[in-house]
Amino acid sequence: MKTSNFKNKNTTNNIFPEALPLMVDKKLKEYIKGYKNVPEKLVKPLKYCLLSGGKRFRPVLSLATAISLGYNPEFVLPAACAIEFIHSYSLIHDDLPAIDNDDIRRGKPSCHKKFGEDIAILTGDALFAESFNIFLKYQKGTPDAKFQALSEIASASGVSGMVAGQIVDIGSTDSKISKRMLEYIHINKTARLISASVVSSAILCGAKRHTVKQFKKYGLYIGLAFQITDDIIDIKSSSLISGKTRGKDQVQSKNTYPSIWGLDKSKIIAKENIDKAVRAIDKAKTNSGLLKNIAKYVLLRKA
Amino acid sequence: MKTSNFKNKNTTNNIFPEALPLMVDKKLKEYIKGYKNVPEKLVKPLKYCLLSGGKRFRPVLSLATAISLGYNPEFVLPAACAIEFIHSYSLIHDDLPAIDNDDIRRGKPSCHKKFGEDIAILTGDALFAESFNIFLKYQKGTPDAKFQALSEIASASGVSGMVAGQIVDIGSTDSKISKRMLEYIHINKTARLISASVVSSAILCGAKRHTVKQFKKYGLYIGLAFQITDDIIDIKSSSLISGKTRGKDQVQSKNTYPSIWGLDKSKIIAKENIDKAVRAIDKAKTNSGLLKNIAKYVLLRKA
Repeated sequence: MKTSNFKNKNTTNNIFPEALPLMVDKKLKEYIKGYKNVPEKLVKPLKYCLLSGGKRFRPVLSLATAISLGYNPEFVLPAACAIEFIHSYSLIHDDLPAIDNDDIRRGKPSCHKKFGEDIAILTGDALFAESFNIFLKYQKGTPDAKFQALSEIASASGVSGMVAGQIVDIGSTDSKISKRMLEYIHINKTARLISASVVSSAILCGAKRHTVKQFKKYGLYIGLAFQITDDIIDIKSSSLISGKTRGKDQVQSKNTYPSIWGLDKSKIIAKENIDKAVRAIDKAKTNSGLLKNIAKYVLLRKA
Repeated sequence: MKTSNFKNKNTTNNIFPEALPLMVDKKLKEYIKGYKNVPEKLVKPLKYCLLSGGKRFRPVLSLATAISLGYNPEFVLPAACAIEFIHSYSLIHDDLPAIDNDDIRRGKPSCHKKFGEDIAILTGDALFAESFNIFLKYQKGTPDAKFQALSEIASASGVSGMVAGQIVDIGSTDSKISKRMLEYIHINKTARLISASVVSSAILCGAKRHTVKQFKKYGLYIGLAFQITDDIIDIKSSSLISGKTRGKDQVQSKNTYPSIWGLDKSKIIAKENIDKAVRAIDKAKTNSGLLKNIAKYVLLRKA
């Protein structure tokens, strides 16, 4: 499926490649449509949460990685969607009353507000299970590449990734933590899965070890910048723009980059990480215009 | 790793092969010990839930399947442990206040009672992620067999398995359901993962399609019988023996085999399913003494 002269007509003029989230949305809908013998009680919240919009940042990164390596993005679409399933599950569980207790997500009632806590817990569980099912059922590639890619995704989600970051995060609410600990939280809670979106795609597209290493760095840097800008958006944006409850971090005494470094310094750190991401991707020596644009978009986004 | 004359000295005289859960326990401890850079806040509840005893019914089935096919059970130990991780995660989430609201599990405070709801939700999530990590990291076998085996496990956990059963179960509490719906709940909530323990192991051990089919039947029949006997135990056993809150199903107006079929008929249906399981495993024409003993154990167990 390698198409070295692949061109995505909508990707060159815009800083965020708008054609790619549409591809993701279409495929996600297809997957959900395939749930023929699944109880309606489960399909409904799955649809509600998974198809509620969003920039599809993680899967877009997977697709952009494939494009930068001369592949048709369709090739990594199952893996990309699998990661969006994981992201969606993590949002549902994070929003639960026992964790972040957030009533709004993407401008709508969060899953537990709409369907109840029991359904929200189980919908998250279902999305997590289905992420693996989708990858195992639909992702093509050499067996070695598929195992490695899936390992990257699973590892980024577990005790050395997302859950670890989240558990340290909720444990440090209401207490002052070190800058190093804050970085640990942001890297694990957010950057690991963002990086896995890039790395799993690079592996599936047969990138060499050196290239994968640079992609990994790129992913971690933009992942960290993404969470820092998330912290900034939480303070600055109205909930109408961000789709979330404004100032929630401050109310909950969460440790964030602005709360520990101040707002201006946080912007500088975000910018530094984006610069590092761009340098890393330059070293990968691939067709990286799209990935650079996405890196720049992280600094400019409003939601 | 095929050892056609493998003998497990403790398995022939006892109806439940006591040596096998010990193997599982040892390996689970090893995996947890390997979590070097994992936050203590996560390792503690992981240990608490995963190493809190239990018969290790599902992984024992995996190992017994390997033995019946002439394999050393060590060979499928990673897959077997991965399934115990999933089982453990499902118990933690089921016990949550929003779902079954159970304060006792295996005779001790359930995860959320001991560590709080937030930690319990995330510990469940971590166990689920780690089940895939363990399989991907440690399970040997041909790539094809590994993919198929992992697909069986993932599928049994998701929207066409465990979560589907659970969501229909909680949705039908307080209302009378049909016998067919009750069977759907029990098969998906419980029997699918039990069957996946057998099937994934058979696939990893290179069993032919016909054999796998019989193993699948065996797994589903004993799985259904297992959930029926669980319903019966909920009524009959004291919480000291079962390690759970006695009569919880009735208090919660859950639909169970005894509530719909009556106690005596439920026992007969459990026995019929065990008989069907034994007939299926006979057709597989493997060394099935151990699997037959486990089937019989399902009817005799008290907890």
